[in-house]
Amino acid sequence: MDTVIVTNPPRAALEDVDVLAGLGVATIHEAMGRTGSAGPHLRPIQMDRRIAGTAVTVVAWPGDNLMLHAAVEQCQEGDLLVVTTTSPSTDGMFGELLATSLRTRGVRGLVIEAGVRDCAELREMDFPVWSAAVSAQGTVKATAGAVNVPVVVGRTMVRPGDVVVADDDGVVCVPRGSVTETIEAGRARVEKENATRRRFVEDGELGLDVYGLRPLLERLGVRYVSSQEYEAR
Amino acid sequence: MDTVIVTNPPRAALEDVDVLAGLGVATIHEAMGRTGSAGPHLRPIQMDRRIAGTAVTVVAWPGDNLMLHAAVEQCQEGDLLVVTTTSPSTDGMFGELLATSLRTRGVRGLVIEAGVRDCAELREMDFPVWSAAVSAQGTVKATAGAVNVPVVVGRTMVRPGDVVVADDDGVVCVPRGSVTETIEAGRARVEKENATRRRFVEDGELGLDVYGLRPLLERLGVRYVSSQEYEAR
Amino acid sequence: MDTVIVTNPPRAALEDVDVLAGLGVATIHEAMGRTGSAGPHLRPIQMDRRIAGTAVTVVAWPGDNLMLHAAVEQCQEGDLLVVTTTSPSTDGMFGELLATSLRTRGVRGLVIEAGVRDCAELREMDFPVWSAAVSAQGTVKATAGAVNVPVVVGRTMVRPGDVVVADDDGVVCVPRGSVTETIEAGRARVEKENATRRRFVEDGELGLDVYGLRPLLERLGVRYVSSQEYEAR
Amino acid sequence: MDTVIVTNPPRAALEDVDVLAGLGVATIHEAMGRTGSAGPHLRPIQMDRRIAGTAVTVVAWPGDNLMLHAAVEQCQEGDLLVVTTTSPSTDGMFGELLATSLRTRGVRGLVIEAGVRDCAELREMDFPVWSAAVSAQGTVKATAGAVNVPVVVGRTMVRPGDVVVADDDGVVCVPRGSVTETIEAGRARVEKENATRRRFVEDGELGLDVYGLRPLLERLGVRYVSSQEYEAR
Amino acid sequence: MDTVIVTNPPRAALEDVDVLAGLGVATIHEAMGRTGSAGPHLRPIQMDRRIAGTAVTVVAWPGDNLMLHAAVEQCQEGDLLVVTTTSPSTDGMFGELLATSLRTRGVRGLVIEAGVRDCAELREMDFPVWSAAVSAQGTVKATAGAVNVPVVVGRTMVRPGDVVVADDDGVVCVPRGSVTETIEAGRARVEKENATRRRFVEDGELGLDVYGLRPLLERLGVRYVSSQEYEAR
Amino acid sequence: MDTVIVTNPPRAALEDVDVLAGLGVATIHEAMGRTGSAGPHLRPIQMDRRIAGTAVTVVAWPGDNLMLHAAVEQCQEGDLLVVTTTSPSTDGMFGELLATSLRTRGVRGLVIEAGVRDCAELREMDFPVWSAAVSAQGTVKATAGAVNVPVVVGRTMVRPGDVVVADDDGVVCVPRGSVTETIEAGRARVEKENATRRRFVEDGELGLDVYGLRPLLERLGVRYVSSQEYEAR
Repeated sequence: MDTVIVTNPPRAALEDVDVLAGLGVATIHEAMGRTGSAGPHLRPIQMDRRIAGTAVTVVAWPGDNLMLHAAVEQCQEGDLLVVTTTSPSTDGMFGELLATSLRTRGVRGLVIEAGVRDCAELREMDFPVWSAAVSAQGTVKATAGAVNVPVVVGRTMVRPGDVVVADDDGVVCVPRGSVTETIEAGRARVEKENATRRRFVEDGELGLDVYGLRPLLERLGVRYVSSQEYEAR
Repeated sequence: MDTVIVTNPPRAALEDVDVLAGLGVATIHEAMGRTGSAGPHLRPIQMDRRIAGTAVTVVAWPGDNLMLHAAVEQCQEGDLLVVTTTSPSTDGMFGELLATSLRTRGVRGLVIEAGVRDCAELREMDFPVWSAAVSAQGTVKATAGAVNVPVVVGRTMVRPGDVVVADDDGVVCVPRGSVTETIEAGRARVEKENATRRRFVEDGELGLDVYGLRPLLERLGVRYVSSQEYEAR
Repeated sequence: MDTVIVTNPPRAALEDVDVLAGLGVATIHEAMGRTGSAGPHLRPIQMDRRIAGTAVTVVAWPGDNLMLHAAVEQCQEGDLLVVTTTSPSTDGMFGELLATSLRTRGVRGLVIEAGVRDCAELREMDFPVWSAAVSAQGTVKATAGAVNVPVVVGRTMVRPGDVVVADDDGVVCVPRGSVTETIEAGRARVEKENATRRRFVEDGELGLDVYGLRPLLERLGVRYVSSQEYEAR
Repeated sequence: MDTVIVTNPPRAALEDVDVLAGLGVATIHEAMGRTGSAGPHLRPIQMDRRIAGTAVTVVAWPGDNLMLHAAVEQCQEGDLLVVTTTSPSTDGMFGELLATSLRTRGVRGLVIEAGVRDCAELREMDFPVWSAAVSAQGTVKATAGAVNVPVVVGRTMVRPGDVVVADDDGVVCVPRGSVTETIEAGRARVEKENATRRRFVEDGELGLDVYGLRPLLERLGVRYVSSQEYEAR
Repeated sequence: MDTVIVTNPPRAALEDVDVLAGLGVATIHEAMGRTGSAGPHLRPIQMDRRIAGTAVTVVAWPGDNLMLHAAVEQCQEGDLLVVTTTSPSTDGMFGELLATSLRTRGVRGLVIEAGVRDCAELREMDFPVWSAAVSAQGTVKATAGAVNVPVVVGRTMVRPGDVVVADDDGVVCVPRGSVTETIEAGRARVEKENATRRRFVEDGELGLDVYGLRPLLERLGVRYVSSQEYEAR
Repeated sequence: MDTVIVTNPPRAALEDVDVLAGLGVATIHEAMGRTGSAGPHLRPIQMDRRIAGTAVTVVAWPGDNLMLHAAVEQCQEGDLLVVTTTSPSTDGMFGELLATSLRTRGVRGLVIEAGVRDCAELREMDFPVWSAAVSAQGTVKATAGAVNVPVVVGRTMVRPGDVVVADDDGVVCVPRGSVTETIEAGRARVEKENATRRRFVEDGELGLDVYGLRPLLERLGVRYVSSQEYEAR
């Protein structure tokens, strides 16, 4: 591994980051052509929180949180820490003390493809976390890693300065270069969904008609049969 | 697969469905001779909700929610949507829009052996869901499946019109033909448990005596030894 | 298996147990030199509860809760029931009735390397539980096991009378003979963490400096490079 | 559970069973419209074996192989034992002695949604097995179950007398009533695949052309771009 | 953790170790009253090998094989290396070079609750391995652990000098103090199984009769019904 | 997703690819500073095969192998097909027919983060495969994906034209730009390992001395204690 700490990567603009937070993970994932989702293994330790921040990335050795401490210094207002390990790990690499330190620098939350601990305390101080595990198991500080290099998180890639959005549906990454088009596409999607919702609720329409799916069902050979016919076969 | 949409299957009576909801999943599972439980992999996205409904079943292709839209039209007051996929999938096949559409038809909730998304919104609109995963990953509408055919959900089978009960302990299916006897057996069990609870709390009795287990322990050769004796061996 | 029920094992003193509860799982795990944690697979069914008790241990057959009933009789004020099975199981071996019975004897909670049910009821009666699964699946009472013998729970061993502490970070076991030194080491750790927290918050210091990690990073060959340099390579 | 042993269920004809064995699991699964596969969790303990038999089904309690012994008596020439448990289990419920007993009755193999043991011995005596786990963990004989009732195996249902085919790709079930049409469809598929293979190998054709997929790709908006163009974006 | 290397633990006698190897894992597990099995997660990287050795135990940090090198020096003729990590890990902590080094000291094999690599080479040099994973991921040598302390491997405990037996069914540990009685009980079991096998094969008897299970089935209320009766219900 | 088929990406030179194949996965992973390994979830369906090829990458929809057919046309002599899905899938997306087609174009093997089928046939025709699952479950051809775009495979990234090496230890990716330095570093590592092996075997040296680990153990505070001392504590 290239054991480097990259300083001052360009970051997405915070006013864009905040707009993306407002859109939420599922909408952004759709707006990006159904890409960017980290996958179902990263779960929030709290409920009903939706945040976004600019990624400061960390590659740590399993069982070792040395590089998280190195990463703190690279963080600034509006960042979100994104931690991966070189191999699968459930260790509690992050707890209340690191969160306290990050909080003083304006960091908004943590996404970690490993474990966390001090969950009750983190919720109490309202420091939101998405992790692959919760574990009391502590770590050492002995092995080199990297800060602010591109990292793989589940099924997506996160580069430093990218926008990471997280809510109850998981975690999504918006590449820094795609922020503007994603916001646009996301807003269009919200409007379209609002229109669809109205047709569902006010007009009692069905998705089959709103999305024009009846011809597709027919083309695919899906047949309607009564329960009696079906049982009789 | 038989790519059919079966219309108007006979359904269990809603007054029975509501009685079953009142009994809860664990009691019903016991009342059916310890059968019908879907298993521990289906978890609620909310807490402290207990519902029951008549099953409208869906077989969908992984990554494809076309048949969920076809199923909405087959739903009526008191139903509960039960979705399976032809192979394991974690995709978020269901979200707030589909729930809104189902809600207008009186559907009570969702059991899905795949993923859901819009979890915060679903909780906010009080549409209860039991799923195998939470994932922002969206789906296409391209491949045929089936509606209202018998489906396998975990370790049990669900037929359209069966009663599906779900609470914090998981999901259980009561075959339409077993509703009356299950209600009876469930009520008997509740009464018996109430009596047992009284003996535990008011009389300070032990399960060993209430259930008559002491002779069994003896027959099985279980011996009582003091801590000193045990350490001395 | 030695099918015995061991009576009256010596137990840790309850005043010490209560001190350990105050310290919490992560702190105790660190105070014991990073040992004793059962691992990330045991999760609480409730949020924000932290308890400790003296272990009454059970080895049960999968799908069989006979020995849990035998164990109730061995419980006393301040105990915590610790249940393992001879092979992996998700069955709901424990529910509200057993909890009611344990409650009358002053038992503080349950740690079970298998499943539980009646989760809503257990939360309502405030009987805290840590388990490997939630499942409605019921059990029989047919096969012998053991009570108050040493058991393996995840990656740690629990002996009867040991102190088991559980909170949102998981479960840790403090051997009866290590209670005093663990309390001492735990208190020292809390004090040290308080001091570190002050340096983080009040002085804006970094972990890199507080823990003296900069020379280590240098020794390990970790280099600082600007984002431009990094991209240029 | 209905604790019954059903005797003499009608079985598929063995000459048909042998034809199905010749077709193999993947072909049969396709011939049935992509249904009937038990799923990827059942793995062979041997390599390069392909068998088929008429199902004798067992529902056993986890950790308990009593009903397997009851099932032996119900087996006859050409059968294949299909074992499920009421909840997930990895226990070694089956070994060389049971295989020896089944062998004397002409049973062809075992499919078990739990564990087996004596793997080396089973391979040596050429008794083929598909299981969810391998485990030395032994079982008791204490709790009732059922023989020759319909069972759920992974994502499919197996009824007594159905044809179960197993090879290195897994396990598939052909309902007794679908045997003739499945054989026909399977043979047609083999012929079609042979023709396709010839076009691939002898004529160097591509699947894109053989299956007529180019128009579909175009309709779906898939574009061809050169590597230079792609990098330039 | 107590970071010690314990030297010269007493070991079981090698002539007994070899007898145990001959009995095999499943038989020994039964002979010990169904205890001692590590569980189904430890799998061999080779087929049809059955070995036994005296345990030299290692506790390593995840991603770190320093203590394996320390352990080599503690090994002698007839030993078997047993490696655990302080938290779950799949890293390839062990490969052909370490095996070569162990081989020169007469070590018989490896049981590791983590990953290995160089699988092809290990098979070629006939150094048998049971592991929880196979992974090319390499490790560092930076963090302290322990050698020859008691360790938890899956669901069992292994102390230095205990006999560890491994074959295609998994891994079992025989405590040093139980070797003689286990050999006796194992031999008795083999004889009994031989007798049972003869009754199965030569006399065509059934397990139902050999084990006297018919009265048990009756007591449990298991009924025999013909297929016609069952379908008619 | 960007639904494109990228044509003619630059590829690593085949003479270098063959050198890398000779080095093997573990050595290459080390030579790249312990990076590039896809992780332990990709397993070979055959034994003792070691190959390397230039990556043609595919992003497919779960349950849909349309894009694999599109990818065949992009393949040439010396390539290796690398398939990912947009979400986790175990479906058998690849079988003997596709392998036959790839074989005619000189493709060397398959790495797929989903399922395969026709395993026996693939082994018989000696077409090596590394996959995340084996499943008979078939797929449709209905949804767009991409060919020859960068893909995430487990914990690493693969770009078209990169060298992918696979053997019994798993899968590793060498970026096209790092081939020369990796070969050099890999050869140096092999030489060093040969020297170490000689010291182990011929001189009976220990890793503790060869790697100079004794001072480290001392610095870490690891103490040597006799078995008697340890027990006496």
